[in-house]
Amino acid sequence: MRRDQDWARARFAEARVARLATVRADGSPRIVPIVFAVAGGVLLTAVDHKPKATNRLGRLADIATHPEVSLLVDAYSEDWTRLWWARADGVARIVGRIEEEYDIGPLVAKYDDYLDRAPTGPAIVVEVRRWSGWSASLEP
Amino acid sequence: MRRDQDWARARFAEARVARLATVRADGSPRIVPIVFAVAGGVLLTAVDHKPKATNRLGRLADIATHPEVSLLVDAYSEDWTRLWWARADGVARIVGRIEEEYDIGPLVAKYDDYLDRAPTGPAIVVEVRRWSGWSASLEP
Repeated sequence: MRRDQDWARARFAEARVARLATVRADGSPRIVPIVFAVAGGVLLTAVDHKPKATNRLGRLADIATHPEVSLLVDAYSEDWTRLWWARADGVARIVGRIEEEYDIGPLVAKYDDYLDRAPTGPAIVVEVRRWSGWSASLEP
Repeated sequence: MRRDQDWARARFAEARVARLATVRADGSPRIVPIVFAVAGGVLLTAVDHKPKATNRLGRLADIATHPEVSLLVDAYSEDWTRLWWARADGVARIVGRIEEEYDIGPLVAKYDDYLDRAPTGPAIVVEVRRWSGWSASLEP
């Protein structure tokens, strides 16, 4: 059943990982998993020290041409009465040095690896335009 | 580090859930979680009896205008040396009555709920054009 925006926002606040969909320059979609935080009314995710296939990240190039993004958090269970997902659709912006523009405290505090080594940008800042969600039952 | 297509294909073969990104008519991306199977060289996912917010599913409308899709399977761990993801980028097609065109045995056999009640379409058939992946270490 469809769930409301407060429910979806709460699922994002609790989640440890989300999936980010962007649109490539050629119009095809791309997905990657991200760590993130809800901070100051936006979703923040940083390009951090985790080893990447390349420094020229596709997701950043995508956002430069198509700022619309979609983020998902969800739970899978073999008991399908426990399935749920929450989605945040919004507009993304690349920030070169995230720590100069935003309080990244909530992002750093959320993950042990960031406490040891805070991300120093670039980062993706998502202004969410629509929160939506679905669950098979009323839990959670 | 970047992983090869055989590795990515193997991660999809093992995964219980994937995330599907599509592109809406207005050019913005959308993500949903899906159950799926690799069957006969394609990825199959059905619109099944799990209760939906609506019968006019957004993902089907998206594919009708933008057949390019991106699917992701991944593992999250608080130990970031264990992170990995695999992606399948391809072209999707809607099939009205899936069981008439494809052997859906692998999909039905994969999930207990489908053994009790097989999906009867519509379904999404994805011809994968590119398998890619990343892992923080060489495991898995």
